[in-house]
Parts: sequence; structure tokens; C-alpha cells
Amino acid sequence: MERIDWARAHMPLLRELEAELSSTKPFAGMTIGICLHIEPKTAVLATALASGGAAIVITGSPGTTQNDVADWLAGKGFEVHGRREDGLAEHRRNITRVVERRPGLLLDNGADLVALVLEQGGNAIGATEETTTGANRLREELSGRVSFPVIVINDSPLKSIVENQHGVGQTVVSAFLQATNLGIAGRRFAVLGFGWCGRGIARYLSALGGRVSVVEPDSIRALEAALEGFEVMELEEAIPRSEVFITATGRPGVLRREHFELLPDSAILANTGHFSTEIELDALRALSREAVRVDGGIERFTLSSGKSIYLLARGEMLNLAAAGGNPVEVMDLGLSLQAASLARIATDPSTLASGPQPVPAEINQTIARRMLSALR
Amino acid sequence: MERIDWARAHMPLLRELEAELSSTKPFAGMTIGICLHIEPKTAVLATALASGGAAIVITGSPGTTQNDVADWLAGKGFEVHGRREDGLAEHRRNITRVVERRPGLLLDNGADLVALVLEQGGNAIGATEETTTGANRLREELSGRVSFPVIVINDSPLKSIVENQHGVGQTVVSAFLQATNLGIAGRRFAVLGFGWCGRGIARYLSALGGRVSVVEPDSIRALEAALEGFEVMELEEAIPRSEVFITATGRPGVLRREHFELLPDSAILANTGHFSTEIELDALRALSREAVRVDGGIERFTLSSGKSIYLLARGEMLNLAAAGGNPVEVMDLGLSLQAASLARIATDPSTLASGPQPVPAEINQTIARRMLSALR
Amino acid sequence: MERIDWARAHMPLLRELEAELSSTKPFAGMTIGICLHIEPKTAVLATALASGGAAIVITGSPGTTQNDVADWLAGKGFEVHGRREDGLAEHRRNITRVVERRPGLLLDNGADLVALVLEQGGNAIGATEETTTGANRLREELSGRVSFPVIVINDSPLKSIVENQHGVGQTVVSAFLQATNLGIAGRRFAVLGFGWCGRGIARYLSALGGRVSVVEPDSIRALEAALEGFEVMELEEAIPRSEVFITATGRPGVLRREHFELLPDSAILANTGHFSTEIELDALRALSREAVRVDGGIERFTLSSGKSIYLLARGEMLNLAAAGGNPVEVMDLGLSLQAASLARIATDPSTLASGPQPVPAEINQTIARRMLSALR
Amino acid sequence: MERIDWARAHMPLLRELEAELSSTKPFAGMTIGICLHIEPKTAVLATALASGGAAIVITGSPGTTQNDVADWLAGKGFEVHGRREDGLAEHRRNITRVVERRPGLLLDNGADLVALVLEQGGNAIGATEETTTGANRLREELSGRVSFPVIVINDSPLKSIVENQHGVGQTVVSAFLQATNLGIAGRRFAVLGFGWCGRGIARYLSALGGRVSVVEPDSIRALEAALEGFEVMELEEAIPRSEVFITATGRPGVLRREHFELLPDSAILANTGHFSTEIELDALRALSREAVRVDGGIERFTLSSGKSIYLLARGEMLNLAAAGGNPVEVMDLGLSLQAASLARIATDPSTLASGPQPVPAEINQTIARRMLSALR
Repeated sequence: MERIDWARAHMPLLRELEAELSSTKPFAGMTIGICLHIEPKTAVLATALASGGAAIVITGSPGTTQNDVADWLAGKGFEVHGRREDGLAEHRRNITRVVERRPGLLLDNGADLVALVLEQGGNAIGATEETTTGANRLREELSGRVSFPVIVINDSPLKSIVENQHGVGQTVVSAFLQATNLGIAGRRFAVLGFGWCGRGIARYLSALGGRVSVVEPDSIRALEAALEGFEVMELEEAIPRSEVFITATGRPGVLRREHFELLPDSAILANTGHFSTEIELDALRALSREAVRVDGGIERFTLSSGKSIYLLARGEMLNLAAAGGNPVEVMDLGLSLQAASLARIATDPSTLASGPQPVPAEINQTIARRMLSALR
Repeated sequence: MERIDWARAHMPLLRELEAELSSTKPFAGMTIGICLHIEPKTAVLATALASGGAAIVITGSPGTTQNDVADWLAGKGFEVHGRREDGLAEHRRNITRVVERRPGLLLDNGADLVALVLEQGGNAIGATEETTTGANRLREELSGRVSFPVIVINDSPLKSIVENQHGVGQTVVSAFLQATNLGIAGRRFAVLGFGWCGRGIARYLSALGGRVSVVEPDSIRALEAALEGFEVMELEEAIPRSEVFITATGRPGVLRREHFELLPDSAILANTGHFSTEIELDALRALSREAVRVDGGIERFTLSSGKSIYLLARGEMLNLAAAGGNPVEVMDLGLSLQAASLARIATDPSTLASGPQPVPAEINQTIARRMLSALR
Repeated sequence: MERIDWARAHMPLLRELEAELSSTKPFAGMTIGICLHIEPKTAVLATALASGGAAIVITGSPGTTQNDVADWLAGKGFEVHGRREDGLAEHRRNITRVVERRPGLLLDNGADLVALVLEQGGNAIGATEETTTGANRLREELSGRVSFPVIVINDSPLKSIVENQHGVGQTVVSAFLQATNLGIAGRRFAVLGFGWCGRGIARYLSALGGRVSVVEPDSIRALEAALEGFEVMELEEAIPRSEVFITATGRPGVLRREHFELLPDSAILANTGHFSTEIELDALRALSREAVRVDGGIERFTLSSGKSIYLLARGEMLNLAAAGGNPVEVMDLGLSLQAASLARIATDPSTLASGPQPVPAEINQTIARRMLSALR
Repeated sequence: MERIDWARAHMPLLRELEAELSSTKPFAGMTIGICLHIEPKTAVLATALASGGAAIVITGSPGTTQNDVADWLAGKGFEVHGRREDGLAEHRRNITRVVERRPGLLLDNGADLVALVLEQGGNAIGATEETTTGANRLREELSGRVSFPVIVINDSPLKSIVENQHGVGQTVVSAFLQATNLGIAGRRFAVLGFGWCGRGIARYLSALGGRVSVVEPDSIRALEAALEGFEVMELEEAIPRSEVFITATGRPGVLRREHFELLPDSAILANTGHFSTEIELDALRALSREAVRVDGGIERFTLSSGKSIYLLARGEMLNLAAAGGNPVEVMDLGLSLQAASLARIATDPSTLASGPQPVPAEINQTIARRMLSALR
């Protein structure tokens, strides 16, 4: 399938792991239960794991499963549960079916598989967990109950570097350009938040000629922004002098009811934080006498004053709204950390503690070294 | 219509001209014949010209007319000829219909309108011509026969600055990201050509973390590239060490038969020059044992050696393949130069020479000053 | 004195602290013993501390005391020990004289004052220590013996940001330009080490058009460098393709005997790490048939092969070799952290633990906020 | 002599020309009369010309002759006139002595040699002229009287690229750092003028983290600045929000009497234009109740309001005030264009027109290609 071949051609880390797993067969005789969006990049991962000797049972997420990829996986002999049409009820049933196979290894997303295994009194050799949300669930809701190692992928410094510092900046720029067809050079942006994501966004916009103001309450981060040449200011100062506002704070209610009427006419709002609550959308709707879809991902709100305010991607993560979501190499990195961590668990589980834990340092070093070679 | 409103909201130069034309009415009693792609930005232009008192008769280009925009223009009382479905024969008929109205002013694209007027022994007060191709036709094929002023928009220094140095660089980056979903940071690009477009592309890729080699036969331009920190090399050196190759030379046959087998496996080729002949596509096809469409704008060729070569946008201008084409402000600038030049011709034609000529200096200064204000 | 006035005019943080200390008088009745290079910026600090009510007794370091500044301080009524002409014996005597005054507060540099107080069985309310070297001495040689708080300035994140990420990069660039009168644009540099200092240097050189290769054994840091667009390679690869080599690793023996004959003719070597051992100077001298001083800070070595190798600043920290050393604002920050930390100790010593400890978080936030305001 | 060896080691273009001239001997039997600052880089040029067979007679400029270099040149058998101590009268005599040798080729600086030859009714095979000032003198004062070709070096596009776009930006940054010991990151600069020099300065400051406002009356240039991300504004707006003001306009009276009292306290003024009249120094002095030398190249003026204004380098060209002046490669380029142009005149004078003319295109291409190779 061409889309899978294209992905594989640009996932050198997974290709190298596949070659290694093919010869070392760390998963021989084991079943790996997977919960991940079913799309071409996941297919490259599943193939790599299978080449290591594993039987694969996989389910996707409601609404994101690409049926042709699911069919392709099934055609390869993997057990696949899930179709794009599935709702939450079907998703729950699919998760159950994966757990019924009693997989020794779990590749989890939001701790759904691990939680169900524990609920059923089951066990596993070990697991990987993609998200911080899932890791928090393990540390809080499921605290003390996980008797096997769970390696949390999102805590790897490589993820911060590759995804947050570079991937997000690029993807937000790309999504902005696709959605608006506006130029960046000379345009005024306010970036709200100067954490890893915010600074990636600010730097990429600035590199393309954007004039970027930064709003950041932490004084140390704000100083970093100023020393990089950004204009640092309070939100109240940034509002009248910016045209595009991008939230990247991780906190709710950053752009609030009291701000909307102060925005310049034709201001553009976008959010890149995990939750769409960074912009108070309910208040925006309540203040508007009209809300119209412009095109693709743009909505126009007319305030009672007559001002137009444009909202991109319905206030959801702008970077994931772009065609294709995260760049291929960001996915190659994350999925390779998954595969290498599972191989580590399969090979030598006794040397790992129980419960959530970071990616082992030697895996980070190895994957970093390989990514470096791939960039040569 | 929302898409037209969005465009107008981001075309401050045309909005300011519209306000001015509304009060000065330079086109009162005149007909303007227009040949331009019919899409939202053109609609903003037509409205501005009409506000100056002109009757408008307009046709588009085959295959690019947006029918809902054509309907919207007709609803405003403009005479519109052309539908998306038209072929070349219908286009020729549409051009004829525009000329039949005996427009005093022509807004031309490729000199089609001017040529037909002359062929029919007609006349006009004056015209504007968008393209260099059209200007060359006036200077060569129609040389000595044009008895009225034709202001050539593409020769304005503002176009070089806004479109070539900034617009193209941004649009190529945007189109590459959309088409491939690959990351730019750390990736190896070879940019072939370091003219206005090539340097825009090289700088934007580099600003996003790309590692860019430049191939440029002119030693002075090549030196400029080296002093900006680019790796400058012969094509033969760039081939084995690059992954993505972007042509921007304006010359045919830059990537040729003898180069294709030397490319690294999975190399990606794209063209940004006006003609798709910068990459010898016939030779690429002839050398390939397989050619498959991957997805969207990507085609994969398998050479007899088994290597894969990917081609973006069928070798046509990558920047125009992106969603939306040129950024809105590039269009705002170009169309405003058109409108202001037509107003100059209408107001004071006797002070202008006959034949093709550059945009008057005071128009460039005025439009630059307004664009600057709009960026504040 | 004009040089002190110039420094004060560009030290807004110390000026603001001085105004604050003048009104709060936290040091009323106390003596502060200081060991710091005696130069204009130190004079601004001493004046600020005195305005807080302190009696000041100060000594400098051998060889760096500026006698006119020492005289100026004495003229202000401070007790000053030390002249430029002093050797190590005099320095030891000066330290003793400071301690004899039984200062309640110590502003130390290398833990010399603290060590002598402890050796004499004395005590203090608390101290600040500028250097990591001094902090290590407190943690190792003097471990368990310090019964009062010692705030270690160099561990503040503000120091990393202002001094290491920005100050060092700028100062190395400035010192290179002064010493060599060479251009940076288009020139090939190898930066050895991609820690805080190395990345500052690499980024500043690259920003000025330099073509920078990075050598870094840690794979994660190396990957960061590659994703920023640097060429990352082994030292063996960098040697034949670079002209200027800058060490910033913090480790000895980076450029070694086996490397010197492999360097290109006319290669230039410089070190920015704390110790001059990053380049094996003994080996370089041993391999050379001639060593000649060129001019200012450049020495030329002729190897037996006839190749010339140039060494800048005798292999000592290149950044400190530039006129003026660290930029004024780097000093303003560091000295303000000193003054604010001393005020914190003087005001409320009981809430601080004994022994070496980082700058309190609220001081970092306050100083960051003020520096930000000063940059407005 | 070590300083000359260092220069030669970093002047690859002159070294390559020397090798070529040694074998082709284009100057055999000819005398070259030279008027140039006598310093190490000039010595490298003179040696290269002599290797081409020329007898050399050379004089320097009053006040800049380095006596040890003059002695070294005399020791090589060249006829040298001039010592550092010389005043204008001696300089005039030295010029006369050079012309008395009846040199067939002249390497001139300000058209002094050419003017004297013409005055005496003499003749020459041809000449080169370094400066635009000299070229203007040839075109105006001496118009129609020059019967031999004079190649004007400063008009070469290579000079604009290498010296104006890169050399000046770097040198101004370097001189600012040396003179002030201030940091650039986060600091507010106003650059007055966005011609070749101004944009070089603005880009280099911005690349180092400076926050740069640009003042430029030409709307097209101003737009270019805005699209590169600079804040473009009127001088009146820039004055209250900047700390450092750098003139680069080529026009007198840019910073005037009415501006000085509006400057922020401790503002820093510097000029980079050819004439020191860009800042109205007389008015500044007249308005000041005190003027004190701070250190090195800084002067402090106290206005009647009590504000301090700092002036760098007495308002003369800041870039030439830095240690060493222009970077070595800028000189290598300019002197190589001189040498290659003289060789062209010597070899084939009949194909060149009389009077001032640009560097032949093939020389520009050749020298560009060699500089490119040297940067590899």
C-alpha cells in the first residue's frame, strides 16, 4: 500500500529496529496488545514488532481508524478490532477483545489496556504508555496496583527535543499557512506561553519574518524570551498591537470574556495547547451576534460591536489540524522508543522496577544516535 | 460570501484603494475588460474597480474559475464569461466576448486581450499586463503595434520583494509540508538556483532548521550564498548528499537523465520554476519500471536499479500546488498595483508613453507606504 | 570616576537594589568582607552594599586589581587591601586582613574567605559564593564544617541563561574578531562541545554567517545540534574540513597530540573552557620546531611538517581575553544576585539551612522581572 | 615579519594571484606607482605585484603609515616614501616623488596620483582607483582629460556583497562590543538608514538577539525592512524607545539639535556613514554643559537637563574604529580586484576604453569563483 510504503521510507528508526528485531526475535512466542490510532505510521510499527516474533492484536481510537490500513493489517495476519465508524461503545468492546487475548506485552495509549487488565485481575510482563495523561492515571487512579513495569514514552528527553521544540513549531506554522493562506513575514503575532511549545512556535514564526510578542507570567522564562529578541509584554499590551493570537500555556482561560471586545477587528485566534479551554469559547459564542464558517478550519464571530474575530480549528490543537498531523520523523521517534522499550521489557524484565518509569537512558542514547545517523 | 469577506479582510491595500476610487471615480463611464483567474481575491479587485465607476466585463482561465465566485460577481451586476468546465475553445470565445464590449481599459494576463484588440484593429485607452510572458509578447510578437500604454505589473520592484523574496519562500515551505508531512529541521535539501526565488527558498528552509546546499553556476550569486552560510557545491556533489531537490533556475533540463540513477534512494524532487521542464520528466518516466501515485501530490518512480524517486506536484510549480496558492498579501499587492495603474491611465493617459512600460515610481512608493502602514 | 559612572549607567539592577537597600538598611551595623576582582563593576556593587548600611572590607585577586579603582574605593571610606602588583603571598595576607575584621557577611570567590574563617575557628551570619569551584570546595574539603548558610550564585538558572547562553556566545565572537580581524561569514568553524557554552558559541557564529560543525559525544546533545541545522560529526571528520577550532567541553585533552599534524595548514585553535588543558599545549609545543608571537593574542607554531598552527589567547578562556571580559549586564546580574542574597541572609538568616545552597527562588524571580523591565 | 605573514596566510586570493603573476609576468619592465595605507595587507599586495615583474614605488597616507611595514617594504627593494609622522605637506611631496618615477601603471586612492600626472602633462598605460570619491573626481573635476583606462574598484558588485553586506555589519558589531563592553541580546537599537550598510548592521544586530528598529524614509526600502521582521518607524517614534542609535544614511544632519533633548538618558550614539556629519556634533557640544572622555572611544555629554548622552568613536566611522578595521578577507578581495585589474590593463590595454570604468565582468567572475573555492 503506497501510503504505508511512503511512511516506511521516511521512518529510518523503525526500519533499523525491524532489521534488528528480525534477527534477535525478542518477542518470540509473545502477544503484544496495542491501542493506537490506526494509520500508515502505526502499520509500520506493527510490522516491525511482528518481525520480532510477536503475535499482534490491535485496536484503534474511535473516529480515527483508517479502514484501508486496518484491512491491510488484517491481510498481514494481525488481529485488528475497530473501524472508523465505531463509537465509544464499540471502542470499549474492542479494548476488551484485545485484553481477552491475554497479551504479555501492552502498548498503551491513555492506560486503557492496563486499567482493564488490572480490573480483570490479569497480569502482564510489562507495558509502554504513550501519554502523560496515561502516566498520571497510573500514578494516581491505579497507584500501587501495577505489578509490572510500564515505560512512559512521553517523558523521554528525546520527545521534548524532537516533538516539542521542533515538531510543534513547524506543525503550527504549517497549519496556520494551510488554514489561512496568509503570509507570516511582517505580520504581528502574540504567542501566549513560552514553555517548550510556545518557544518553538515563537522561534519558527520569527524565523519566517513574523513580528512576535510573547506573553509569559513566569519571569525567568519571560527573560529568556526577551534575550532571544522577542518583545515581552503583558496580555493587555499585546492585545491592541497583535493580529494573530496563539495560546500555548497548558492553562484554561487565557483568552477570556474581558479580552474579546478589546481585540483588533479581524483578529485571528488559535490554540495549540492540549485542551481547547485556553480560549473561553463559550464566552466568545455568548458575546457574538453571529458565528459563520468561512472555509476549511476558519470560523468568524461577529461581536455586538460589529468587530469580526476569526477562530482557527475550533480552538482545538492547531498543529494536529494540519494535513497529516505530526511530521513523520516525530512519529518515527516516538514509535521507535515504544518498540525498543517493549524489546527491553521482553528481554530482561527482572531488571526493571514495577510501575511507571522513564525510558531507560541507554535506549534514549541509542535512538538519538540512530536518528543522528539518519540525518547525515 | 464568506470566502470573499475573508479575503477582503486581509487585503488592506485594495480596501484603501476602493475607498479612494469611490470618492474620485476615475473610471466613470468607462468599461474595464479583465482576464484573470476567477477566485475570491479577484472578486475583491473587481468590486474595487466598480466602486471607481467602471462597468466590468471579466473572464477567467480554463479550469481555474470558481463557479460560486463567478455567480457572486454576476449577482453584483458584472458581466462574467467562463465556468470551471470550460476548455480552450470556450476560453477563446470568452476572450472574444470581453473584447466585443470595446473596453477602454484592459487588465490583461498573458496579453490575450491586447492581442485580440490589435488583431481586430481595435484600440484602447490603456492596459495593464500581469506577467513577464505577456510583456515579452508585447515587446516581440506585437512590437511596434501597441499604440496605447501598457503598464507591466511584474516588473515592479515591489513584486520582487513581496512575492519573490518572501512569498515564494514561504509558499514552497508550506506546500512541501502539506504534500509530504515531513519535518524540515535537520533534513538535507539541495536548492538548485540562487536567483530571487531560489534564495527565498533556501533562506526559509534554513530558518526552519533545514541543512541546505546551493547549486548555482553564476560565481557572484554562488559567493553570496556561501557568505550567507550555505554550502555551495556542484550538482554532482549535492546529489549524493541531499534528500530533497528543489529546482528554481528558470532553465530547462537542470535535473537530467544522467542524474536520476545517481540520486539517493527515496530522493524527493520538486520544481518551483515557471516551467516543469527544469526536471526532465520524460527521461524520468523512460528510466522507470514503475510509476505509482502515493497520495495527494506525490508520485513514486521505481528505477531499474530498484531505487525509489518521489516527485512532488507532477513537477509543476510546487508553490502554486499548496492550498490557496500565493499568500493573500502577495495578491493584495499585485492587484493593487493593477488597480492603481489603471486609475493612473484613466486619469492622465497623455503623460504616458505607448507600449509596455514599468509601474510609475510614485505608484510603487505609494503602495509600499500603504503596505508598511498595514503591517504596523 | 568616569569608568565607574559608565558601568553604573549600564547596571540597572544594581542601581535599583541600591535604591532599595538605602531605604531598608538591611546591613545596618554589619561588616561585609568581600573577595572579588577590583574593577569598576565591583565598585558599583560595593557602593550599593554600603548604601544598605554595611561597613565594607574588600580585597581583590593578584594581578587584576585596578589601582585607580582601589583608590576610589578607599576614598569612599571603604577598607581596601590589595594592589595590582601583589603576588600570592600578599594576596594571602590581604585575605587574612579581611577576616581579621570579623565580617558577619562574606562575599566570597573560590571559598577563600570561608575557609580561612573556619580554619581560625571563627563564624559568620552567612555568605555568598560566586563560583562552582568554590561551591565544590564547600561540599567536599569543607563538608559538614560550615555552620552558616552559603548561597551559591553560579547555580542560579539566571546565570545559565544570561551568562552561558548569551554572554559567552557574544563574548567569544567579540574576542575572536578582536584577536584575528578575520571575517566570520562563510568561514568554517568546528565547535567542540555542545553544552550551554558550546551551543551559545555555535549559535552566535552561525547567526553571523559562519559554517559551523559541532563535535559532541553525547548523542542527545548531538541530536539537538543536528536539529538546529548544524553539521554534527566526529572530530576526525571535522579536522580536515574546518579552519577554526573552539573547545568548550569542560574536559581535558580534547585536541591532542595525534590531532595536530592532521589539522589543515593555518588552522586556528582557541579554548573557551575553564581550564586551558582542553588543548594539549605541551604536546603542541613539543611537536613544533618554532613558536612565534604574531600580534596581540596570537601565537604561531610551526610543526615539523612545515604547517602553521595559530593559537589564540595562549589557550586560556578566549571570552575573558576580550577587552572588558564579560558584558556589563552579565556582571550586573551576577553581582545583583550577590547583593540580594546577602540582604536575604542579613534580614532573615534563621529560615535558611546551613551550608551551600542555591539562590532562593523568589530572588531569581525578582531579579528576572527587574532585568526584563530594564530591557523594555 | 609575523604580522605580514599572518595577513598573507588569510589572503588566499592575493596568494593565488601572486602565483599566477609569478609565472605570467604581465608587469615585466613596468613601474607601478601606488598610493595606499601602508600596513601589512598592503605589503602582501606589493609583493604580489612585484612577483609579476613590476618595479614598485609606493606612498602611504598621512598618519596611518606603519613604519615597521614601510621598513620591511624598503628591505624588499621597493621604493617607499612616507612615515607615520608625515603631515599633509610631506604627503604632497611623497605623491610627487611617486609620479617622478613615471610609473606606467597607477594604483590610486582618491585620484591623487592621476590628478598629478595630468597636471604635469604626463601619461600612463592605465590606473585603478579604489574609492567612489576618486571616481567622482575623475568624472567631474578631471572629466574628459583622462586618456587612459581607470578601473574603479569600488563599483564592483563583489565589493557591495563582501564589504557592505557582510564586512560592515560584522565590523560595526565588533567595534560596538569592543568600545562598550555591553551585551547585544535584548538591547534596543535604532538603525537609521536601510541601504546596504544599514541592512547589514540591522541584520547582524538582530542575529545576535538585539531588538532593532529601522528608520528609513524610502518606502520601498522601509517595506523590505518590515518584511524581514524589523520594527519600522519614524525617528520621532524610535527616539524614546531605543537606547543605541546608529546612523548609516550617507546624509548629513540625521540626528539633529532638536533630537538630543528627546533622547533617553544614557543613550548611545554612533555613526557608520562616511562623514561624521550624520550626527550634528556641533549642536551636541553646544547643548552640553559638560563633555568628558569615559574610556577608549567613549565620550559623555551632559545636557542642560542633566541627561547623559554617550558618543562612540567621536562620531567617525564606528567600523573603522575597531581593532584592525575591515576584516582581512574584505581587504583580500579589494586588493585582488586591484591586482587583477592592473594585470588586465598591462596585458591588453587597447581593448579598454579611456577614463573611469567598472571592473571587467570576467575579473569579477574569476575573483568570485576563487573566493568561493577559498571558503570551501
